[in-house]
Amino acid sequence: MTGPAPAPFTADDHRARMTRAAGAAADAGLAGLLVAPGPDLVWLTGYAPPATERLTLLVLAPGRDPVLVVPALEAPDAAKAAGGPVLDLRDWRDGTDPYAATAGLLDGTGRFGVSDNAWAMHLLGLQRALPGTAYASLTEALPMLRAVKDTAELELLAAAGAAADATFEEIRRTPFGGRRESDVAAGLAELLRGFGHSQVDFTIVASGPNGANPHHEAGDRVIRRGDMVVLDFGGLRDGYGSDTSRTVHVGEPTDEERRVHDLVREAQEAGFRAVRPGAACQDVDRAARAVIADAGYGEYFIHRTGHGIGVTTHEPPYMIEGEEQPLVPGMCFSVEPGVYLPGRFGVRIEDIVTVTEDGGRRLNDTTRELVLVD
Amino acid sequence: MTGPAPAPFTADDHRARMTRAAGAAADAGLAGLLVAPGPDLVWLTGYAPPATERLTLLVLAPGRDPVLVVPALEAPDAAKAAGGPVLDLRDWRDGTDPYAATAGLLDGTGRFGVSDNAWAMHLLGLQRALPGTAYASLTEALPMLRAVKDTAELELLAAAGAAADATFEEIRRTPFGGRRESDVAAGLAELLRGFGHSQVDFTIVASGPNGANPHHEAGDRVIRRGDMVVLDFGGLRDGYGSDTSRTVHVGEPTDEERRVHDLVREAQEAGFRAVRPGAACQDVDRAARAVIADAGYGEYFIHRTGHGIGVTTHEPPYMIEGEEQPLVPGMCFSVEPGVYLPGRFGVRIEDIVTVTEDGGRRLNDTTRELVLVD
Repeated sequence: MTGPAPAPFTADDHRARMTRAAGAAADAGLAGLLVAPGPDLVWLTGYAPPATERLTLLVLAPGRDPVLVVPALEAPDAAKAAGGPVLDLRDWRDGTDPYAATAGLLDGTGRFGVSDNAWAMHLLGLQRALPGTAYASLTEALPMLRAVKDTAELELLAAAGAAADATFEEIRRTPFGGRRESDVAAGLAELLRGFGHSQVDFTIVASGPNGANPHHEAGDRVIRRGDMVVLDFGGLRDGYGSDTSRTVHVGEPTDEERRVHDLVREAQEAGFRAVRPGAACQDVDRAARAVIADAGYGEYFIHRTGHGIGVTTHEPPYMIEGEEQPLVPGMCFSVEPGVYLPGRFGVRIEDIVTVTEDGGRRLNDTTRELVLVD
Repeated sequence: MTGPAPAPFTADDHRARMTRAAGAAADAGLAGLLVAPGPDLVWLTGYAPPATERLTLLVLAPGRDPVLVVPALEAPDAAKAAGGPVLDLRDWRDGTDPYAATAGLLDGTGRFGVSDNAWAMHLLGLQRALPGTAYASLTEALPMLRAVKDTAELELLAAAGAAADATFEEIRRTPFGGRRESDVAAGLAELLRGFGHSQVDFTIVASGPNGANPHHEAGDRVIRRGDMVVLDFGGLRDGYGSDTSRTVHVGEPTDEERRVHDLVREAQEAGFRAVRPGAACQDVDRAARAVIADAGYGEYFIHRTGHGIGVTTHEPPYMIEGEEQPLVPGMCFSVEPGVYLPGRFGVRIEDIVTVTEDGGRRLNDTTRELVLVD
């Protein structure tokens, strides 16, 4: 078990990402990108301040050096970030108007891409300061900005996936029956940290009827013999995400439980096999969904098949009907079909998959057979 | 030491808050309020989902029942929230357009207040679905929506403050010299949790020259004899916030260190004494700032004097020049002047203060004298 370490990116790495992003913005007809605290800013600059009512905004415009508008009292931290040396810091003090200061950096008639999670109050401030501007969310304007991972990023995602796999291999050997969901969840969190995660984002333990709620977290319910238990856990390790799901059974399953689990496993395999360069995101969803629909369980698969992963555990691209974005080598996303039978039980199986030159490669690889636990 | 417990509010409490908020919106000329995941939603409904790219939005309009637009797979959790029973849930499935669904609930020519921290992508989705609408951030439109606390809330804030005080009383008795800032920070977090906090938001330990950066977190620096050390810590206990700062000294201080500490203490006292109903927020800032400026240190007090606190540790109202909002009994905010001498040291002293009928009352009350630690 090793401790967390920062992602190994340099100022030059960040400069290259920012240059690439500004180029992509120009290609998309944008006058620039406005990047708020959160995953876009972390990826571009290595700087990870909290999002607050004080405006912090990275302004990327083609052919100009990157500018970071930053509250004066946070400027020292920004300067120390990995990408800090290549940022032109424009600090502003409490009591001055940061939107007016930012407006001076922008083309007043331009269209800008803005981080999905930028605060509405900041967007409204910019819209008021520059009424001639227009905006699109980054997911809409440049949905693939962070989607294609380079070699170093793939290694970090693979290491996070291996840590999640190690966590499952440990937790399956612990007793489930008689413990509360929250106890098993605490065990998952401890294992993830033990295997190097610096941040645990979710530890879903959904037993028996709770499994029918895809987003059930972990509660006080005591797990019993005869329960199906959905486990879905992940977080960040060295700045990159893990996210895997397995469904286990306490003691011997019924024929129906085994049949539904086999069905979801088959759907997950079909989704995985649909992964190849040039296929559309929606093809992955369709392939997994068809298996479940053909077996008559279509109405019980109530969410999309997957989502991207990178510096967050949940990001574009989405594997969903209507998403025609073609898959490109280096993209990483979850393939996680499920069946949810209200009041009874649920099954979900999830791996992170990366697109290779000729197909897909799983970054999780613990068994997808139904694991029986005590 | 006690464990965390949910804030004791009922569906009726939440209904009353939502009715009051809708009335305030009408008084402010708004067609309604659009409330995103985060502190506004927690306060109004008791529902605390993560903010994601999937739209969750509470729609409050005068004379109408509250509606919560919610992703289908999260609807069961929303229904279980304290305020769930009084919400009209409108769930939407992946692949459908939640903005079109929300637009049907809104006056297409109205002006709406929207949570400060609503995601820009969601605001852009609404602006596109309803081009005739206008928006203002809730802080701008209804800055005092959550600012005035009722008796139950004040009790919870007082309990959180007492837990923070207990944390300081314990940490000051531990050795500082020879330990890393991060070790002392870990101790603060453990104490806050031990005294009932369910969430630790920040544990600033800024020693020696690091103290000159107001937002320095805790790092690897080993604290030495002769260091001033700024401690600033807080989080949530039973759903309400704590936030206090004290500056301690390892061993005997120099005359200058003592003089600067005395100055900040005097400024903090002056800020506190300016708190009374009818005074403006900026009066608190002016009172504290005048003490520091008169002593010739004005340029080293580089942030506002305070911020509100409630279901978050950081919210309106702000004690800052230009904020003319009058103080009202029940408001709670920090009074936290500081002096930051670059490359040398910093001092900050912070208490949470609530406005009473005839002045202010501190919710933190450990000594503000310079505490000498080992």
